[in-house]
Amino acid sequence: MKGNIVVGQSGGPTAVINSSVAGVYVAAKKLGVGKVYGMIHGIEGFLQDKLVDLDKYLDNPTGVELLKRTPSAFLGSCRFKMPKIEGHEDVYEKVFEIMEAHDIECLFYAGGNDSMDTVKMLSDYAAAHNKPQRFMGVPKTIDNDLPITDHCPGYGSAAKYIATSLKEIIRDNESFGAEKPTVCIVEIMGRNAGWLTAAAALAKGSDCSGADAIYLPERVFDMDAFMAKVKELAATKSSVVIAVSEGVHVADGRYVCELGKEVAVDAFGHKQMSGTAAMLANMVAAETGLKTRAVELSTLQRAATHLASLTDINEAFQAGSDAVKAANEGKTGMMITLDRNGDDPYQCGTSAYDIHAIANVERKVPDEWITEDGTGLTDKYEKYARPLIMGELLPIFVDGLPQHIVMDELLAK
Amino acid sequence: MKGNIVVGQSGGPTAVINSSVAGVYVAAKKLGVGKVYGMIHGIEGFLQDKLVDLDKYLDNPTGVELLKRTPSAFLGSCRFKMPKIEGHEDVYEKVFEIMEAHDIECLFYAGGNDSMDTVKMLSDYAAAHNKPQRFMGVPKTIDNDLPITDHCPGYGSAAKYIATSLKEIIRDNESFGAEKPTVCIVEIMGRNAGWLTAAAALAKGSDCSGADAIYLPERVFDMDAFMAKVKELAATKSSVVIAVSEGVHVADGRYVCELGKEVAVDAFGHKQMSGTAAMLANMVAAETGLKTRAVELSTLQRAATHLASLTDINEAFQAGSDAVKAANEGKTGMMITLDRNGDDPYQCGTSAYDIHAIANVERKVPDEWITEDGTGLTDKYEKYARPLIMGELLPIFVDGLPQHIVMDELLAK
Repeated sequence: MKGNIVVGQSGGPTAVINSSVAGVYVAAKKLGVGKVYGMIHGIEGFLQDKLVDLDKYLDNPTGVELLKRTPSAFLGSCRFKMPKIEGHEDVYEKVFEIMEAHDIECLFYAGGNDSMDTVKMLSDYAAAHNKPQRFMGVPKTIDNDLPITDHCPGYGSAAKYIATSLKEIIRDNESFGAEKPTVCIVEIMGRNAGWLTAAAALAKGSDCSGADAIYLPERVFDMDAFMAKVKELAATKSSVVIAVSEGVHVADGRYVCELGKEVAVDAFGHKQMSGTAAMLANMVAAETGLKTRAVELSTLQRAATHLASLTDINEAFQAGSDAVKAANEGKTGMMITLDRNGDDPYQCGTSAYDIHAIANVERKVPDEWITEDGTGLTDKYEKYARPLIMGELLPIFVDGLPQHIVMDELLAK
Repeated sequence: MKGNIVVGQSGGPTAVINSSVAGVYVAAKKLGVGKVYGMIHGIEGFLQDKLVDLDKYLDNPTGVELLKRTPSAFLGSCRFKMPKIEGHEDVYEKVFEIMEAHDIECLFYAGGNDSMDTVKMLSDYAAAHNKPQRFMGVPKTIDNDLPITDHCPGYGSAAKYIATSLKEIIRDNESFGAEKPTVCIVEIMGRNAGWLTAAAALAKGSDCSGADAIYLPERVFDMDAFMAKVKELAATKSSVVIAVSEGVHVADGRYVCELGKEVAVDAFGHKQMSGTAAMLANMVAAETGLKTRAVELSTLQRAATHLASLTDINEAFQAGSDAVKAANEGKTGMMITLDRNGDDPYQCGTSAYDIHAIANVERKVPDEWITEDGTGLTDKYEKYARPLIMGELLPIFVDGLPQHIVMDELLAK
């Protein structure tokens, strides 16, 4: 490539989305690309010509290393979706105008489903209008729900955080040996796909009895069966820990967290949306009289870079790096996929794949990876997921806390 | 000491309470003590003669190192409080009977306020009845609310976890640059004392703008002032992150989390106790129309040993170790205190202090460490707390997750 390139981040952040930016930057510099720009706040900021020359932050000995250890979107993210082309040609033309103004040959976009749709729309527009600019997608989502790719950068680190936290929560819950157990319900992200909640299965090992039941949104949630399971566990165990997806829903389609919605209002008289774990913990307490606790792993699932998986960081970096190489070979309208080549030892390569097969398709946990009674995962999941959480890249601690790299442009705001 | 000793853990676990058990074990073995017993589930289990010879787990090259990296109470904990002596002499006699049966000279008890009361009662009983057995307290509480001691083992690690998580949450919340900011309310433990919530102040640094406001239970929570503060912040910032103690309460004494209690019921018609952060986030959303998010750091504040402070681990170990040395000198009815000898560099020694001055006394954050408007901490807090979060003791990762040590006696249950 003779011109410049630009890289952007979009959608919910992950622990390793910045490693993909690092991969784009390092590979481009090796290939002799002129300037590597970052979009500030994704395509939304790009449309307002908000760019930063990444040399400012990364062209020094520690920049890339700090970036790999920085959570969330270093460049800022956005939830902006490109409109349909018809009737909105001006928005598309604006993108190409800004690319031309900065001599940008190729645009790299790290994100999930919606972001891959943006790559598709832009590359379709370029093809239809004979524009030379190229567009490449870099996969990113803790939800792990993109198709074709074996898994998504961001998932391994979220899974490592979830499994580690669950081990710690289980130990905490086990510490009291009362006659009546405490029932702890742990709520994990993932509204439609249960990949993140499935990671609770990884906690089990020689030093941990694991979660006692795991409920994914891939199966309909049966409240009676759930209550029966809790009572059965509580009858024999001194500690009960249950992992549930935030997206579990009952047969009529309502999310569990919506079940009390018509009656729960706050002091101001407004309806109160409570969490799935809180709702279930309250129901268990009311039905059984047992002590309950609700834990929502929340934002930290996608932000806890201090516990990121080295495998995940390396693959996120590689996805960014290989996107640049593919673009350099003239490819466009594609996303980099991670292709598993072996399990023992685990090996993973990449391909560039037609974005049309990927955008807007959601992949769920295969049915045969879920146990028959719907309260656990089979060995197939473990074989799939364990390699993804292996390895650590230690934070650089300053004043007792992990140090991050931050853009002046964003810190000031 | 010629005989044996026993060590127990009591109350809510911390990330480093096991380091105190390690300290007791290592110091006792160096002094030539015969057997070092652990009580299973504290004094409650001890009264049922539930003991384990710690050699079984710790007399090998990795036992103590794994124990220092294991969260929660390795021996199991309890919430049992010794009854008043009058009318319950049988319970006290039972303790001494079991001590004599196992030739136990001294009992070490790691815990917070209630546990120190147990040490006081037992040593008082021994003194009143001319019993030779000795009783020593080892401080432990993430709440940091024991008096006399400069700080409590467990607090530094909880503070490190809270500040690290807050940095990650702030980065996540900042990633979207919409015109309307997201207001994120982070709920931190500590019902009466604001020490844990104060740790949010440590997140601020060259790479992080820090929490925008911090509310401790030491000050009355004024809902109007809070709403005004949120609106003021939201008018100028693209991200607002506020830390609140779970114990914040309004002028009439009600906790904030109780404000909607009379109306919030779940699907079963039962009252629903929602969290403080959820309550405030709902109120802010209703009042301002802003997007809000509630995060409860929850159990992990006291269980996240994977991010423990090395300073805290070492001091917890030293407190256990020095309790043994003090007992070996004949002391009884005392708790080990941590005594700060200097700030630059930070230095900390220990003393043995009369348990009567400690049991049942609660220490709060000094008023002059809280800013005048009650929404932040002064430099005095930073100077106090920063040294306590310094250093790391890395987990031993096995199969991608931190490895713990576990007692067969507890895992099986």
